[in-house]
Amino acid sequence: MNNDINTKNQQTNPHLGGPNGTNILIIGAGLCGSLLALRLGQRGYNVTVMEKRPDMRKVDISAGRSINLAFSDRGIKAMNLVGILDKVMPLCIPMNGRMLHDMEGNTIFAPYSGRKEEYINSISRGQLNALLLDEAEKHKNVTIHFNKKCQSVDFEKTTARFKDYEYGNTFVEDADVIIGTDGAGSILRQSYFLEKKFLFSFSQNWLSHGYKELSILPAEGGAYKTFKNALHIWGREAFMLIALPNLDGSFTVTLFLSWDEGTYNFNNLTTKERVLEFFGIYFRDALELMPNLVDDFFENPTSALGTVKCSPWHYKGNTLLMGDAAHAIVPFYGQGMNASFEDVTEFDKVLDMGHKDWESVFNIFEQNRKKDTDAIADLAIDNFHEMKGHVNHPNFREKRNLEMLFEKEFPEDYSSKYSLVTFNEDLGYRDAMLRGRAQDKAILNMLADGVISASTDMSSEALKTVLEKVKIETENILEKDRIAGEA
Amino acid sequence: MNNDINTKNQQTNPHLGGPNGTNILIIGAGLCGSLLALRLGQRGYNVTVMEKRPDMRKVDISAGRSINLAFSDRGIKAMNLVGILDKVMPLCIPMNGRMLHDMEGNTIFAPYSGRKEEYINSISRGQLNALLLDEAEKHKNVTIHFNKKCQSVDFEKTTARFKDYEYGNTFVEDADVIIGTDGAGSILRQSYFLEKKFLFSFSQNWLSHGYKELSILPAEGGAYKTFKNALHIWGREAFMLIALPNLDGSFTVTLFLSWDEGTYNFNNLTTKERVLEFFGIYFRDALELMPNLVDDFFENPTSALGTVKCSPWHYKGNTLLMGDAAHAIVPFYGQGMNASFEDVTEFDKVLDMGHKDWESVFNIFEQNRKKDTDAIADLAIDNFHEMKGHVNHPNFREKRNLEMLFEKEFPEDYSSKYSLVTFNEDLGYRDAMLRGRAQDKAILNMLADGVISASTDMSSEALKTVLEKVKIETENILEKDRIAGEA
Repeated sequence: MNNDINTKNQQTNPHLGGPNGTNILIIGAGLCGSLLALRLGQRGYNVTVMEKRPDMRKVDISAGRSINLAFSDRGIKAMNLVGILDKVMPLCIPMNGRMLHDMEGNTIFAPYSGRKEEYINSISRGQLNALLLDEAEKHKNVTIHFNKKCQSVDFEKTTARFKDYEYGNTFVEDADVIIGTDGAGSILRQSYFLEKKFLFSFSQNWLSHGYKELSILPAEGGAYKTFKNALHIWGREAFMLIALPNLDGSFTVTLFLSWDEGTYNFNNLTTKERVLEFFGIYFRDALELMPNLVDDFFENPTSALGTVKCSPWHYKGNTLLMGDAAHAIVPFYGQGMNASFEDVTEFDKVLDMGHKDWESVFNIFEQNRKKDTDAIADLAIDNFHEMKGHVNHPNFREKRNLEMLFEKEFPEDYSSKYSLVTFNEDLGYRDAMLRGRAQDKAILNMLADGVISASTDMSSEALKTVLEKVKIETENILEKDRIAGEA
Repeated sequence: MNNDINTKNQQTNPHLGGPNGTNILIIGAGLCGSLLALRLGQRGYNVTVMEKRPDMRKVDISAGRSINLAFSDRGIKAMNLVGILDKVMPLCIPMNGRMLHDMEGNTIFAPYSGRKEEYINSISRGQLNALLLDEAEKHKNVTIHFNKKCQSVDFEKTTARFKDYEYGNTFVEDADVIIGTDGAGSILRQSYFLEKKFLFSFSQNWLSHGYKELSILPAEGGAYKTFKNALHIWGREAFMLIALPNLDGSFTVTLFLSWDEGTYNFNNLTTKERVLEFFGIYFRDALELMPNLVDDFFENPTSALGTVKCSPWHYKGNTLLMGDAAHAIVPFYGQGMNASFEDVTEFDKVLDMGHKDWESVFNIFEQNRKKDTDAIADLAIDNFHEMKGHVNHPNFREKRNLEMLFEKEFPEDYSSKYSLVTFNEDLGYRDAMLRGRAQDKAILNMLADGVISASTDMSSEALKTVLEKVKIETENILEKDRIAGEA
């Protein structure tokens, strides 16, 4: 670190050359930043990471973000890349499907896949992040500083200004390359936007709904009060409640609710009585497990849900956005963390290509990657609607039943949209989206037309015939879209 | 005007009541703001308009924006609403179709519609704006001030701060309602974005291409050097040139070209020789009409093309965005001005409903309108690709030929997407988009499959059969989308 902005290395177009000579500054030691630091450390770069929060391994800090997350195959692929999957697995609780709770407290278990080896995991954000920090710090060419809040980035000079929360001073850090993994509220991205030095496309889109975290505490002796290996959903069309298990026997519960629409909304749930009334009507079986509801409700913050897209992610070969800083998404596909981890996998692939300069690396990374992060952003919004209500619709259930039969009976021949997105880590999000949507359209329309049906007592042969029809109609839809798109 | 922010009327939730008591402040006297002032003046409101530029009727100012514009049915409807169509028509030059110029200078005329009464018009931005200002000022309850640049809006207090360019002072203006018609760079919108007092969804998306205005000057005696009644297009896939006629015999020519991609782009067209070489290769017949090309090229600015979407447009019943301030679009559908004029038509409809408070008016206006302005924004981007290259593709031309035959032979039974958007002013942009895209998809796919063909010597009966097939397939596509969308 140095305090003089002018001591910056004058090299204006740094070449990759050998990694040893290159100083990479990473802003933000969250999930993406710490994995990136680990990987670039493994590759031999000199890596400095600046994190605004205290070291989460030493101080008990409220994450301010969701406590547990869905961890699935794209995340697993990234953990394999850095060779720590064996350390991550003990932190995971498998969730094999959705446990759907109706108004009367009846439940239906809807598996995520017809293939039993395909499931997602609940994992603690804090524990996973701490592991990544530990692993990154094992490399002597990686240094992580805490309590250093980025204030601004000069992307033309490749320097960043930080406030040191420990000592109160500010200082300027320079580097050959700066990578902003500083989350949805990225300061690097804000510099791109506000400086207006190039044409920066940007969008922030807020959902009509906010969220609040609540909890189901463990039973006596640390037992789970409800079924452990599922993502629980209380879908009520206009709003929903979900719950994911934690290792200590608790569940983290999240309420997704409109800010201001409908009879019950965040703006009018202002008294204990009204909160209990709302949960009593809509989430009766959950309420029975949550004697702590009212305290949680009024102690915990209510937060907004937004999607951020932008372009370009990089300024020349100087700076690059990654993870939520480049593409923040809503949580409804359980892919936010997985997408950020996949950024590191994909960035690593581009580094393997052996380009001579960082501008080419950043360019190719964005060209390859942006279509996929745009797709998962859109899929996550779709899934918000699916989880709230469509999971309860007869035609949606019929489609899912049929897909479960396909996946179970012909595991090599069919993957639902959910499976393509979640369990097919070598297929990009965009291709998964296009094929998955075409399949959904094919099945829903053929069900509506009575061309196929989804009875569970179909013979394997009859089911095979239905699958063939679905595949032909899917190709048909994709081909028609292609012809119309080419106009 | 007053200089004290505290003199603001304390009425916090102003009711519409009679219009006479209500003070409406409009920021920006461009096309949308001056039409809005005229209409609200006609309705009896006290209207004050603040415009940052000098009075265009007294000072010759470079518009800094396109010199002429496409004026069509949605604009005409708005002119009828305020009763001035007879004064607008003399400013119009009909453009009955596209004149497509190929590399060798050959031309093909492609009409906009098979119905000869359907055409668009070229109109001077300056002349039309001046007319609207004149008409607005005829109302003694409308006052327009020039050289007053809005600096910020306090949307909670319903006050706006202005810099007076004539006298150098700043002052604060209060009102019961403030409407920002201050264009793509709106200060009211910027206040929404920067203040972060509510969840404001916002996007700005820049096109890969910029634009530069050039000109074809009149021939001796004010004659037109090329065909007057067309929008001329030199589409070259990666870039294009267009020309629209002016009343004085000149054409305003616009080059749309990538900033930095391809052999020729704005970043590398830096010498006279290179500009002439570029035009000599790609726009030979245009170059012959433009001896002034090089001077124009280096004197005129190069500008960016962007799309802006946002939501909400209003803050409670205090402030509202309209026109480009709410929804700036790229110019390729010739609908930017028409969409802004239609905002006024639609706003007027909501005023007719007799709501008791401005918040309801603004809410309903946005609910009705935003889906349509989002649609025209997307259609305009599609048309960029259509104009650059698709107009030259055989399958696109075949589709257009067939649509021209439909519109000519069965004018009551068919309207192309272009006609639905441009000539069906009582159909919203979104419905026009959905139906238009479904029709395009139906025709392109049936042509590709050989189910229909587009020969010009078809009998009326044979053509009718083709039209029926197109209609059935269009309904089929819309129905399939509907079923899949409902999931």
